[in-house]
Amino acid sequence: MAGSVFGTVFRLSTWGESHGAAVGCVVDGCPPGVPITPQYIQADMDRRRPGSTPGSTPRKEADQVEILSGIFEGVTTGTPISMLVHNEDQRSKDYNEMKDLYRPSHADFTYRQKYGVYDYRGGGRASYREAVGRVAGGAVARRLLEERCQTEIVGYVLQVGNVRGEVDTAAVTRATVDASEVRCPDLQATEQMKAAIQEVAKAGDSIGGVVEVVARGVLAGLGEPVFDKLTADFAKALMSIPAARAFEVGSGFSSVFMRGSQHNDPFVMKAGRVGTSSNNSGGIQGGISNGENIVLRVAFKPVATIAQEQTTISTAGEQVSFRGRGRHDKSVLPRAVASVEAMVALVLADHLLRQNAYGE
Amino acid sequence: MAGSVFGTVFRLSTWGESHGAAVGCVVDGCPPGVPITPQYIQADMDRRRPGSTPGSTPRKEADQVEILSGIFEGVTTGTPISMLVHNEDQRSKDYNEMKDLYRPSHADFTYRQKYGVYDYRGGGRASYREAVGRVAGGAVARRLLEERCQTEIVGYVLQVGNVRGEVDTAAVTRATVDASEVRCPDLQATEQMKAAIQEVAKAGDSIGGVVEVVARGVLAGLGEPVFDKLTADFAKALMSIPAARAFEVGSGFSSVFMRGSQHNDPFVMKAGRVGTSSNNSGGIQGGISNGENIVLRVAFKPVATIAQEQTTISTAGEQVSFRGRGRHDKSVLPRAVASVEAMVALVLADHLLRQNAYGE
Amino acid sequence: MAGSVFGTVFRLSTWGESHGAAVGCVVDGCPPGVPITPQYIQADMDRRRPGSTPGSTPRKEADQVEILSGIFEGVTTGTPISMLVHNEDQRSKDYNEMKDLYRPSHADFTYRQKYGVYDYRGGGRASYREAVGRVAGGAVARRLLEERCQTEIVGYVLQVGNVRGEVDTAAVTRATVDASEVRCPDLQATEQMKAAIQEVAKAGDSIGGVVEVVARGVLAGLGEPVFDKLTADFAKALMSIPAARAFEVGSGFSSVFMRGSQHNDPFVMKAGRVGTSSNNSGGIQGGISNGENIVLRVAFKPVATIAQEQTTISTAGEQVSFRGRGRHDKSVLPRAVASVEAMVALVLADHLLRQNAYGE
Amino acid sequence: MAGSVFGTVFRLSTWGESHGAAVGCVVDGCPPGVPITPQYIQADMDRRRPGSTPGSTPRKEADQVEILSGIFEGVTTGTPISMLVHNEDQRSKDYNEMKDLYRPSHADFTYRQKYGVYDYRGGGRASYREAVGRVAGGAVARRLLEERCQTEIVGYVLQVGNVRGEVDTAAVTRATVDASEVRCPDLQATEQMKAAIQEVAKAGDSIGGVVEVVARGVLAGLGEPVFDKLTADFAKALMSIPAARAFEVGSGFSSVFMRGSQHNDPFVMKAGRVGTSSNNSGGIQGGISNGENIVLRVAFKPVATIAQEQTTISTAGEQVSFRGRGRHDKSVLPRAVASVEAMVALVLADHLLRQNAYGE
Repeated sequence: MAGSVFGTVFRLSTWGESHGAAVGCVVDGCPPGVPITPQYIQADMDRRRPGSTPGSTPRKEADQVEILSGIFEGVTTGTPISMLVHNEDQRSKDYNEMKDLYRPSHADFTYRQKYGVYDYRGGGRASYREAVGRVAGGAVARRLLEERCQTEIVGYVLQVGNVRGEVDTAAVTRATVDASEVRCPDLQATEQMKAAIQEVAKAGDSIGGVVEVVARGVLAGLGEPVFDKLTADFAKALMSIPAARAFEVGSGFSSVFMRGSQHNDPFVMKAGRVGTSSNNSGGIQGGISNGENIVLRVAFKPVATIAQEQTTISTAGEQVSFRGRGRHDKSVLPRAVASVEAMVALVLADHLLRQNAYGE
Repeated sequence: MAGSVFGTVFRLSTWGESHGAAVGCVVDGCPPGVPITPQYIQADMDRRRPGSTPGSTPRKEADQVEILSGIFEGVTTGTPISMLVHNEDQRSKDYNEMKDLYRPSHADFTYRQKYGVYDYRGGGRASYREAVGRVAGGAVARRLLEERCQTEIVGYVLQVGNVRGEVDTAAVTRATVDASEVRCPDLQATEQMKAAIQEVAKAGDSIGGVVEVVARGVLAGLGEPVFDKLTADFAKALMSIPAARAFEVGSGFSSVFMRGSQHNDPFVMKAGRVGTSSNNSGGIQGGISNGENIVLRVAFKPVATIAQEQTTISTAGEQVSFRGRGRHDKSVLPRAVASVEAMVALVLADHLLRQNAYGE
Repeated sequence: MAGSVFGTVFRLSTWGESHGAAVGCVVDGCPPGVPITPQYIQADMDRRRPGSTPGSTPRKEADQVEILSGIFEGVTTGTPISMLVHNEDQRSKDYNEMKDLYRPSHADFTYRQKYGVYDYRGGGRASYREAVGRVAGGAVARRLLEERCQTEIVGYVLQVGNVRGEVDTAAVTRATVDASEVRCPDLQATEQMKAAIQEVAKAGDSIGGVVEVVARGVLAGLGEPVFDKLTADFAKALMSIPAARAFEVGSGFSSVFMRGSQHNDPFVMKAGRVGTSSNNSGGIQGGISNGENIVLRVAFKPVATIAQEQTTISTAGEQVSFRGRGRHDKSVLPRAVASVEAMVALVLADHLLRQNAYGE
Repeated sequence: MAGSVFGTVFRLSTWGESHGAAVGCVVDGCPPGVPITPQYIQADMDRRRPGSTPGSTPRKEADQVEILSGIFEGVTTGTPISMLVHNEDQRSKDYNEMKDLYRPSHADFTYRQKYGVYDYRGGGRASYREAVGRVAGGAVARRLLEERCQTEIVGYVLQVGNVRGEVDTAAVTRATVDASEVRCPDLQATEQMKAAIQEVAKAGDSIGGVVEVVARGVLAGLGEPVFDKLTADFAKALMSIPAARAFEVGSGFSSVFMRGSQHNDPFVMKAGRVGTSSNNSGGIQGGISNGENIVLRVAFKPVATIAQEQTTISTAGEQVSFRGRGRHDKSVLPRAVASVEAMVALVLADHLLRQNAYGE
């Protein structure tokens, strides 16, 4: 069973190779009557696009999304929403020399082991370009959550290398994020991050970092006991993004250094509703949302493509040496923000509908 | 749609409340012909049981597993395997005083928000006792992997509070793990961990830590592109365990501080097969296993039940103060090892069958 | 992927072999707060039991259902409901002589082809006894539908051999059905059916028939376009019952002989709601319920076990002759009514929750 | 959860409205390395197209399928296969007058009840045009079955109104079927069927019929016990086709009139393998294929659109009268053959992969 479907009730199915005819997705299970425009979806798509932020690839990709079904007279109809983006920039000759070797820490080797055949052009299905489907589907999910629950999802770059920003999860907005060239709303940290990215770029190298995301206005009661905890589904969602290496909710790894008496979030009354006075839980207790802000982090490794000489093994099993060419990101972090937000929206939309299913 | 099912082809469904009649599971999709004994399953169950390690609860739970279907004349038949453990220790009166308040950082509040009704006795479905189903199902998965692929899965406590052990992922065995009272194969660290646990116990407090797990002998080619990457499914599996706060694969969060040129794992020939000379990838590239050891870590927060006075809100919305009673773990880490291993086995078994599905 | 799970949101998972320790099921996804008693479930179980109707097997099976989880203080809690029935009558020696041959039109041959191993005792998983899980799960679904929508589901034997009853789908009740020894509410037809069954019994033979089922009070709008039409899911549900050979909705096969102008159901106003003046559609249009009574029929072949000498092939490939022994039904029809009703309830409960998922 | 996905391991997801931009599908889970050409898929698409057979609509639809992903250098790559057909003939003004009324026995009323909104142009998602996705996906499944198992699937019109053909399931081929203008390989019956269709056409009416399908060369052992029996999955698959009213396997409804001693299929040795000397089981026993030919039938009602005056209710609840316009099929049967074959291929491909999953 192949793995290009995400979600159970609000379900996203993506398809497409980096250098095939197109990439796209089908959203099945979106409720009817959600008002949504092509412009709304395109705005999210544009944030995913390479070229808008320092360190990202200079390729010009228009990436205009076409909506082929499921939206009629400005609203969703409840039937599958098919969307696609044609691939315009198919200079696959750039990739021909990669065809017979396994690039280190890419998927070349594992895809060939798995399938026997492999669309080697630009990584095929393993390319960052598969994010097109995530982001288009995520935009529909985000619109549903806004419309039904006034949920806001804001992602941003928290850390690049050893530069870490300071961000107020209660206040950060997409506008403050997009004011930064590296999508870090801490503008002082932004300058240091830019410098760090430029430094590795000069060395023909790449650098990792951390994206943090907050979801505000999430209903209490979302998430399902045992395996489909919100925590678990967010972990899967974010760790499915290419280059993700680690995941945290709330206090995350720092909880290891705390005692129960420090870590527990006391319940208090907040304007007539039950809330907590601290939020080490990151808005999720027993796998279920408690109405506080959901706070997640995902760490991305430095991208594998670097402009330095590397040795590896050819498909014939010989040791070879090569140097990456073409246009590649020095850091995927600023663009990854769009994928992170999309995945968070997809998880919340799915669990909203799952909770709805119980009825009254 | 409720969340007590894990896996797609090798599928585990668990059920049962802490203080109901029994807890158990159904494994659907295990191939026929796998030799397995009740003793094999019971051995895993016993490692999950409270009482065998310092800091764990003194409750005596025999927890004898009953196999009700799907195994005939010593082998699996391909039909659903139903297993259960009766709950013997149902002193639910201990829990009556908890009935009308929301214990901090427990699931009391979120379950009530979600369901309206709540089996408050000992946490109901949110109790650590739900691990019985995971571990019984995981034992079947582990047996399948051993039998078909000689895969070995070894989990252990890597860190308690700020004490971190040193463990050789290539050499560690269940025997060396179980030689430690806290299931840390580094015996020097073991002593420090015991001391740390005893110190918090004395203070009526609790402490967190990290479990690491290695899977050796995993076929290359397992995992599916895009959403059902091995990385993503492991993240979901391990983050579904109660008290899990963070997840890492391979280099994990430390990758943030590395450059691409340091992080990339060069391919080399190893005894006739393609391997990598370092393993920052943790055995997974592009979401698919590459045949190297899979290395994962999961961080657990300090358990929420502590023997100190805490303030909280009652179900009527009044501020109240209470003190935890009864018998509770100071650290779930040594017992959590069994759940971690079980979840890893379930993910690998599922992906093995998914890969089989393609046929030749 | 094994096939013992039914439904998507309201999900039933069954397990157990005819001569294993027990048979049972897990219901996952039932909403919280549905009041249900063990007696309610047992009443449905009793109708499935052999021995209460002419032509059924004389085995005494108490078949007391045990509820192990998911119901607390008289209502469902939203967590998995585990139920089981211990197998008391395990005279498996009766079956030993069947062990090495393929009984005609049983599953002996196909199970061995599929699995290599086979629990041959009484048909194992292919026994009619697997209905225990269906009926227990169906009872929960039926209770949900009653409670939420006042839906009534009534099944009955419509035909045995060439004797066909006349039944008013608008008026028939469980009481009028159970007043008949063969569960045919047409009492004249009942006598002829009994005679037909006794005649084949005397000849050591078996006989087929048709069960019809009506669901009244179904909300309009249930069912999903394209593949998960109500029609399709009912067909799957009913054709999964052992011995089912054909399925009809509304006009069924007779529609072949009609013209569009005769078959179309004109819309009319009915007490303030839109209805149809005829019901050839059987309450389903475009795969979606229209609020009229849902009417389905399923045809069962004569059971394969007969008390006559038959020739077949042994597992060694030799021609052999044998005669069925033990206690077997001459007609499963009266008992099959409970399975038919259960499956209809499961489909409707699942689609009710799926429709709920869209929210408002 | 919406219903536009079919299958579990070999999974088809379809999308598109009759008068939207396009209709299409995504096949996820097809094994890598299956050789397939656009021409192969187009050949199946052409058989679905209206206009090639008497009684079908005269619309000219080129319906050229575009393959957008998942096939590289002539073989499947194991990644999702996205296919679409642009809608060329979007004269939606023809449908404007239907916008405010419920056409009898169409999905207009039920879609509005379900969704509130409705793409009324030509039936939207409920149009026969959704078959494009089924047939494209089915072609991939058929190719897989041919390549791996030499399975042949042949469907044909068995009956129109009261004219029934005689067809030898062992010998019938696609060539003999396509030699008939109504896709009935009995050429005498063909003439009578044509006459019957022309007669209803002249009266502005429509007529139903039966499609039979045989699958030859099916491996023994496909299908899963209890709910996912082959029988059940075929029933769902075929009853999901628009206008399907009844389903039969093997002896079907006629089994009701038989005794067990007549109906049982004796096992015999056939050229070294175990077979049966009769085939009342239709190739399936206990829900699992036995290696004999699989024989299924599906009955279609007369299409709802007729060129006669009909009365109905407007969306405002007023009684109105109208007459169908535009170009419509008098009988969908000849075209439905392509959908029937596609659905049979999809079920068999899915169960082949499910059986593969068990491995060796």
